[in-house]
Amino acid sequence: MSILLIGSLDAEEYAEWRQHILAHLPAGEELVLAGEPHDPAAVEVALVANPPHGTLARYPRLGFVQSLWAGVDRMLSDPELPRKLPIARLVDPALTQAMMECALAGVLFLHRQLPAYARQQAGAEWRQLSQPLASQRRVGVLGLGELGSAAARGLSTVGFKVSGWSRSSREVAGVSCLSGAEGFDRLVSEAEILVNLLPLTPQTANVLDAKLFARLPRGAGVVNLARGGHLVEEDLLAALESGQVSHAVLDVFRQEPLPASHAFWQHPRITVLPHVAAYSEPSTASRIALENVARFRSGQPLTALVDPGRGY
Amino acid sequence: MSILLIGSLDAEEYAEWRQHILAHLPAGEELVLAGEPHDPAAVEVALVANPPHGTLARYPRLGFVQSLWAGVDRMLSDPELPRKLPIARLVDPALTQAMMECALAGVLFLHRQLPAYARQQAGAEWRQLSQPLASQRRVGVLGLGELGSAAARGLSTVGFKVSGWSRSSREVAGVSCLSGAEGFDRLVSEAEILVNLLPLTPQTANVLDAKLFARLPRGAGVVNLARGGHLVEEDLLAALESGQVSHAVLDVFRQEPLPASHAFWQHPRITVLPHVAAYSEPSTASRIALENVARFRSGQPLTALVDPGRGY
Ligand SMILES: NC(=O)c1ccc[n+]([C@@H]2O[C@H](COP(=O)([O-])OP(=O)(O)OC[C@H]3O[C@@H](n4cnc5c(N)ncnc54)[C@H](OP(=O)(O)O)[C@@H]3O)[C@@H](O)[C@H]2O)c1
Ligand SMILES: NC(=O)c1ccc[n+]([C@@H]2O[C@H](COP(=O)([O-])OP(=O)(O)OC[C@H]3O[C@@H](n4cnc5c(N)ncnc54)[C@H](OP(=O)(O)O)[C@@H]3O)[C@@H](O)[C@H]2O)c1
Repeated sequence: MSILLIGSLDAEEYAEWRQHILAHLPAGEELVLAGEPHDPAAVEVALVANPPHGTLARYPRLGFVQSLWAGVDRMLSDPELPRKLPIARLVDPALTQAMMECALAGVLFLHRQLPAYARQQAGAEWRQLSQPLASQRRVGVLGLGELGSAAARGLSTVGFKVSGWSRSSREVAGVSCLSGAEGFDRLVSEAEILVNLLPLTPQTANVLDAKLFARLPRGAGVVNLARGGHLVEEDLLAALESGQVSHAVLDVFRQEPLPASHAFWQHPRITVLPHVAAYSEPSTASRIALENVARFRSGQPLTALVDPGRGY
Repeated sequence: MSILLIGSLDAEEYAEWRQHILAHLPAGEELVLAGEPHDPAAVEVALVANPPHGTLARYPRLGFVQSLWAGVDRMLSDPELPRKLPIARLVDPALTQAMMECALAGVLFLHRQLPAYARQQAGAEWRQLSQPLASQRRVGVLGLGELGSAAARGLSTVGFKVSGWSRSSREVAGVSCLSGAEGFDRLVSEAEILVNLLPLTPQTANVLDAKLFARLPRGAGVVNLARGGHLVEEDLLAALESGQVSHAVLDVFRQEPLPASHAFWQHPRITVLPHVAAYSEPSTASRIALENVARFRSGQPLTALVDPGRGY
């Protein structure tokens, strides 16, 4: 019986993950790699990093899928994904901390008007802009899960007024927690800086659209750290054009890598990051993933299980 | 007997300060402005914002000088400044918070490699750089006074390893506090990101020089939020040229406004901010300044007194 490692990875990435997984592999477990010869009927567990669609269906005895990545939206959109298969995503404190740091960096970048000062610098213009304190600024965080709640907490600790939005009602210290359509409208209409940390599901796709941008306070900043599919790209370009949105920090895109010809690259009011907000560190992620595998093997309750019905 | 408002201010700034000072002026006090007719012999208190050199010497009965700004280096370098005059600087929690936010913004900007990603963006280059966590990064803060200790605390709260340096030994929660020449060497040699929040004194002038840059870990970032006189400009340019320093965020300059022809404006590895890290808000600063004036009037101990011998 074996554990399969499968993903949209290049040879180097496969090698790195293999090395770290082997370092944590309990005695008696065997690791096989997608690109190497193995018996599909012997695979009971899959460690996955965006497995190509259709691949997991080839493993008749697969009993548990553990993602090495936090987001599982691409895997869940696989029409051949075996139903009723327990799927866990990665919840890694190191990844959560990285996301919190990236959200803080993006929000402080906008809060302290660094894009505006960079434009002034290009023209050798010395001009002081009025600068509110964080305590005079409201940041809205869409999604209060593992990553969103950590980002919201971090922002609140620095001094921002923070609102957060989730499906169920949540409690996060220092954060005004909202839910439902009304909560959404309220959060968006007050968010001088909006951070997206929702999972990509049929319900959240295209959430960053013209309607949302129109509802933001004029000149708001947008930070998308979740998925490219959340953003209607033309709507953002129009909102930047009109000044309704002043600047956007984007870490994720519909197509990644972002094509060289894409309008975002040269846009003066868009900061493009190449999907670097928070990535799984093979060293910590392998340990966490294999701890869940051990739970599966011993029949204990699994952690970080995905609900395919909700889509996250 | 009257209170003088005097500074390097334009008419609009004088009007704004006057309005806020009047709002907090106790009954019985009279406010006079430097540019308007008044009797110098009646002035007992001066509220100052960088008073031009030589001006304070014209007030024979001056008994107390309260700065409306945090930094008093330019006033202290006035050769005609009356000796033994008690001088207080501004300690304003709103200004302290603003500085903490600016220090965090500058450090996170460098920590998350936003300058490098901006360069990649200009070339439509999608490339992920390795990214340590804040907990794997040491930030050094020069100066652990009102502003430096707040910045150090904020950085530590976000997760950075923080060292701080002061003249006397200090204790700041979460911060490794150093002093003396040995402490300086240790802090500098470990600081992947260096934040300067020292006051400008004869001892601290030119502290950011070739010797310091050479001692930093290779590729370090520098954030100067204190005074332009701390930085040896040519030494920074050389350290950036060699790659010893990867990027500098500068808020203060030897000459302000920074002259349009200055090399810093167009330098790809320098972020120029027009002295905006933390400015005195007339609304809060006026109240705090007048509270100290009231202490002076009633003979109570004054707060935030400057020691002209130390120079800060
Ligand atoms: N850029 C990067 O490098 C990077 C790295 C990792 C992850 N990510 C992205 O970050 C996303 C969030 O990750 P996570 O671990 O925080 O996810 P999570 O723990 O599953 O949290 C999801 C949050 O979104 C809320 N939500 C989901 N659907 C909703 C809806 N229809 N309406 C309102 N709220 C809804 C959930 O509400 P409840 O609390 O009520 O369930 C929950 O608060 C990931 O899915 C991924 O796309 C990006
Ligand atoms: N960019 C802006 O917008 C802006 C705004 C406001 C202020 N500032 C600058 O920020 C500076 C710091 O302000 P602050 O209010 O924090 O000053 P502060 O409270 O007087 O603190 C000064 C700190 O520097 C240390 N120090 C002074 N001389 C030293 C020396 N020779 N060697 C080692 N340490 C030394 C002091 O050590 P001890 O603790 O032992 O005394 C103290 O920790 C101001 O002077 C000003 O230049 C800039």
